[in-house]
Amino acid sequence: MFKIYDISMTVKPGMQVWENIASKQPSIVNVSNHGSGQAVYESRIDMEVHCGTHVDAPLHMLKGGETIESIGLEELVGYARVVDLTHCRDCITRADLEPLGLVRGDWVLFKTSSSFRDTFDEHFVYLKEDGARYLIELGIRGVGTDALGIERAQLELPTHRSLFRNQVIIVEGLRLKDVAPGTYFMVVAPLKLTGIEAAPARAFLIGGM
Amino acid sequence: MFKIYDISMTVKPGMQVWENIASKQPSIVNVSNHGSGQAVYESRIDMEVHCGTHVDAPLHMLKGGETIESIGLEELVGYARVVDLTHCRDCITRADLEPLGLVRGDWVLFKTSSSFRDTFDEHFVYLKEDGARYLIELGIRGVGTDALGIERAQLELPTHRSLFRNQVIIVEGLRLKDVAPGTYFMVVAPLKLTGIEAAPARAFLIGGM
Repeated sequence: MFKIYDISMTVKPGMQVWENIASKQPSIVNVSNHGSGQAVYESRIDMEVHCGTHVDAPLHMLKGGETIESIGLEELVGYARVVDLTHCRDCITRADLEPLGLVRGDWVLFKTSSSFRDTFDEHFVYLKEDGARYLIELGIRGVGTDALGIERAQLELPTHRSLFRNQVIIVEGLRLKDVAPGTYFMVVAPLKLTGIEAAPARAFLIGGM
Repeated sequence: MFKIYDISMTVKPGMQVWENIASKQPSIVNVSNHGSGQAVYESRIDMEVHCGTHVDAPLHMLKGGETIESIGLEELVGYARVVDLTHCRDCITRADLEPLGLVRGDWVLFKTSSSFRDTFDEHFVYLKEDGARYLIELGIRGVGTDALGIERAQLELPTHRSLFRNQVIIVEGLRLKDVAPGTYFMVVAPLKLTGIEAAPARAFLIGGM
């Protein structure tokens, strides 16, 4: 029997958001409630599309880049490798990635120290430019991370931009604390949005499949 | 090799919404754009949680009912049967369901005339109370429909309420036009929300798995 690992962040007011910027918080508003004499309870949600677990599309950091509907479910569903990078302190470099034995066509999910905290870490472990170039050389299909971003502290955003230019998909905001390194069947299911640069997603892994 | 059928509605301004009520439309707002001298393109989305393809939780129609996080991914991922009910004109009754050979534990997705239109149909084919009672008797785990609702035209909402009271999960707003009747591996992936009555979802079927 298979086992499901939910690797998504819960989206709710007060959650961790990028750089703790208050305007990036989601809000949930009740628009109909049993208590008000209505028969139904209904809510709206207002959120950044980068809130919590999400998929980025090239437009996010490339002017004129492709939008989120260009990334089909076929690219977000299939086997993926969870790799343990919890020893990395500042960033993930080519030297950190080389021992992992990644091969062409792999989808790789980085388990870092970010999976063990629920607040935004301004020093979160990020993928350094040389690590991104290594993934591109290898022909990696996609990369996921448990930090809210795959990159910080690099002028001109070379990690994002080189990945986007080379059709490597980026997923951010995963929760991998309870997942051991290994190979799983991955589902990343973004809301079906169109014409914009990202979409919030539910993501999970299936073990034993 | 498996084949993926995306059975989700695209969420965008101008899409079909319940009873064409304007306040139920989603809105997408750009908050940062390359053209404005920013390095990044970023958007927010504001939507009803019943917009497009979504999962309902009991709180939607039962005062004090369970909220969306009570429905785990284990209940939304697994084999499901797509059944052809395109011949039904007004509603789906017990008599329409009996010939289908549904059995305890099945997940069932109704393919009706709603899959063939992209505008709200005030006369959409719905599940009549006696049909809901039949699904409950059988011990069906969940029911999905391609209409924006599983029910209309019934006082006191007995279809919703009886399904909710008996832990039958309800998914609404599927797109099944391109899916032949049969058994598929189903993924319904709602946004990971908490404390409210529903969540928008990406849903897909995998054939040949």
